[in-house]
Amino acid sequence: MTALRSVTPDADRDDIRIAGALFDEIAARTADVEGVSRPAFSDIETRTLALLVDFAREHGLETWYDAGGNANFCLPAHREAERFTVVGSHVDSVPFGGNYDGLAGVVAGLVCLVRASSHKASKIRPLHVLAMRGEESAWFGPCYIGSKALTGKLSASELAARHKGDGRSLAEHMADVGIAMDDVRAGKPLIDLSRIEAYIELHIEQGPLLIGKNIPAAIVSGIRGNIRHRAIRCLGEAGHSGAVPRAFRRDPVLAMADLLVRLDESWSTILQKGDDLVLTSGVVGTDPERHAMSRIPDEITFSLDMRSQSAATLEEMRTLLSEEMRQVERDRKVRFEVDEELYSQPALCDPALVAGLETAMERSGQAPFVMPSGGGHDAAVFGAAGIPAAMVFVRNQNGSHNPKEAMELPDFIAAVDILHEFLKVPA
Amino acid sequence: MTALRSVTPDADRDDIRIAGALFDEIAARTADVEGVSRPAFSDIETRTLALLVDFAREHGLETWYDAGGNANFCLPAHREAERFTVVGSHVDSVPFGGNYDGLAGVVAGLVCLVRASSHKASKIRPLHVLAMRGEESAWFGPCYIGSKALTGKLSASELAARHKGDGRSLAEHMADVGIAMDDVRAGKPLIDLSRIEAYIELHIEQGPLLIGKNIPAAIVSGIRGNIRHRAIRCLGEAGHSGAVPRAFRRDPVLAMADLLVRLDESWSTILQKGDDLVLTSGVVGTDPERHAMSRIPDEITFSLDMRSQSAATLEEMRTLLSEEMRQVERDRKVRFEVDEELYSQPALCDPALVAGLETAMERSGQAPFVMPSGGGHDAAVFGAAGIPAAMVFVRNQNGSHNPKEAMELPDFIAAVDILHEFLKVPA
Repeated sequence: MTALRSVTPDADRDDIRIAGALFDEIAARTADVEGVSRPAFSDIETRTLALLVDFAREHGLETWYDAGGNANFCLPAHREAERFTVVGSHVDSVPFGGNYDGLAGVVAGLVCLVRASSHKASKIRPLHVLAMRGEESAWFGPCYIGSKALTGKLSASELAARHKGDGRSLAEHMADVGIAMDDVRAGKPLIDLSRIEAYIELHIEQGPLLIGKNIPAAIVSGIRGNIRHRAIRCLGEAGHSGAVPRAFRRDPVLAMADLLVRLDESWSTILQKGDDLVLTSGVVGTDPERHAMSRIPDEITFSLDMRSQSAATLEEMRTLLSEEMRQVERDRKVRFEVDEELYSQPALCDPALVAGLETAMERSGQAPFVMPSGGGHDAAVFGAAGIPAAMVFVRNQNGSHNPKEAMELPDFIAAVDILHEFLKVPA
Repeated sequence: MTALRSVTPDADRDDIRIAGALFDEIAARTADVEGVSRPAFSDIETRTLALLVDFAREHGLETWYDAGGNANFCLPAHREAERFTVVGSHVDSVPFGGNYDGLAGVVAGLVCLVRASSHKASKIRPLHVLAMRGEESAWFGPCYIGSKALTGKLSASELAARHKGDGRSLAEHMADVGIAMDDVRAGKPLIDLSRIEAYIELHIEQGPLLIGKNIPAAIVSGIRGNIRHRAIRCLGEAGHSGAVPRAFRRDPVLAMADLLVRLDESWSTILQKGDDLVLTSGVVGTDPERHAMSRIPDEITFSLDMRSQSAATLEEMRTLLSEEMRQVERDRKVRFEVDEELYSQPALCDPALVAGLETAMERSGQAPFVMPSGGGHDAAVFGAAGIPAAMVFVRNQNGSHNPKEAMELPDFIAAVDILHEFLKVPA
């Protein structure tokens, strides 16, 4: 499946110029040694929001800050709309990150507003664009902080989480940027959630699927849930690498390899059944204090991250992991010591919104394409708060969370077109 | 197969007392925070040799230091023997090591001499006991330093190796303990090798085979050679753990797991054919600077240590490793970057000596049992110098190179009995 678009209309060229200038200015003002660094609940984040506010005012938009310290934008006519669609994303980045993860979604909303405020454009339904703070977990540990605060879901333990750099708590950092913390601590929503008709987030794809399929944009079917383990230990018995015969070994490295290959085989089977799954062991290591080339190690530690759009598949993998561990323990005389499971429920995007976005994608001249999101996003938080939520992905080279993120502006505009078509009031 | 011995004769009780006292005194004088530390070419090593010399003199033995700084012992009658058997081992230990790795072989030789010098004992063939310096690689990197120096085989690069602690070269440390370095540097043997009829080394078993089989001692068939790689890198492509579908992944962790499981399966097949092999990946790790639970890592590094008594089996594994890597590279779109291979030739023990020791084992009341040595030993260096070499193993709990080495004295005496029977002049 490839896109049907081939020429760039004049209107899109204007959008490219406007969006490009905004992306470039923010990248320049938040540049780090490599890439950009926009820490959550920092002055840099505050200044980024202020830049967006300046941009919006220049384009005749209404702007304000909500009680969560996030910047909001709309057409003057929509400021007091009883109900409205929110197009939002976050402006913070990981350290030495790319410019587009988060920011693209905010700029996309602003481009829709700029289009709508120009005389050429057709009317759009009431729209508030939301530029949020603090989505990335890289700074404090917890993620989706901005959207959780807005929806009254930030926990005491999250508020107590320490900043990786200065060690001060998230609550202190939030207070520093001017957020009144009483309602946050009380778990009260900071905005009237009942007025939000839908939450839609445009985001760069963090994987290579759209690159591989040569498609500029896609509708997201849902956000994969996950079962994660930071550190599973496999315990065996140390011994001389040359002196212990195979039958006497309790080798944790071969046991872990065996387990991972078993899980990989099941992964393949699950995909063949048509179910959704990704599986990663990202952190693996023997103990540097004790390991040696000529020593069978007594343990190895590894992380596990299993994600699926289906809660049933995650459940299946949880059972399978446990069964395969038991089998490997029996076969190889080792013991697995499993740390606490981190669980996040899959979040399906709202089916009516997905259908509406598919229609909009078709109307914008693109063959509809729907795919899951592997990464988590603020959209899941709004979805969990009972607000119909959906997402649009933009093709992006080199993944996210690194300075090499490479979204191309024509792709971005293709995705904005989907949003804009969706927002148009039917003639 | 179990030992035929069940009672401890009076003579053995004397041996146990003498050997036990000597082991205890040396352990006490070389104790570290945990276990013992007897660094190669250190004052502690020199003092250990001096303790042995004192012990030998008390028992009426002749003693001297050779040009390699090693202590030698014999019956006065055998000092000038034209040809003689050497029973030797090393007195150095790894840091925080056990008391028996090395030292047991020296004490075994001394016990044979003490037995022979007593009126009760039958005559033995000419025997020189050799207490060597510097066998362990833990201090400088190279191993078998003492025996290599004696046989004129210490290379310039080995002499330039730096001490792990003070950074000074091996040559400097050797000169410090009084060794004249010119002949060592010139690669001249420091003793007349042609006078040595046979080299026999008693050593604790570094694996659990004798424990598992409930046998106190064994004859060694040969010393496994090895193919080793310190750090093989498997290179893939980093990506978001949730966002990259299986078909797009180049996951180095799963690739390494796949490779190790393939090698493990071949290992099993090779053992079923009756060939000898052990295989270990002792050092495994993703990059701590970059790895994360939710990131497919771009690389993983692992060591590999494959040992066999058979050069043909090692050759087979070298080919297999290369073939399996190519297959995994094709299947999983990764690349293996293989570091320089470290190779050590298998060293078969001298067949006539092995046969003689088997007969001696039987004569000492033990069912003959022959097994390979997984670890390398000074015996291999003497074998490589053209001297018929052989080894006797003593059962030992908890492996070696750790403070928990647990050789039991009755087992030690059972092994000494084999040596002593072998040395006896036939009636």
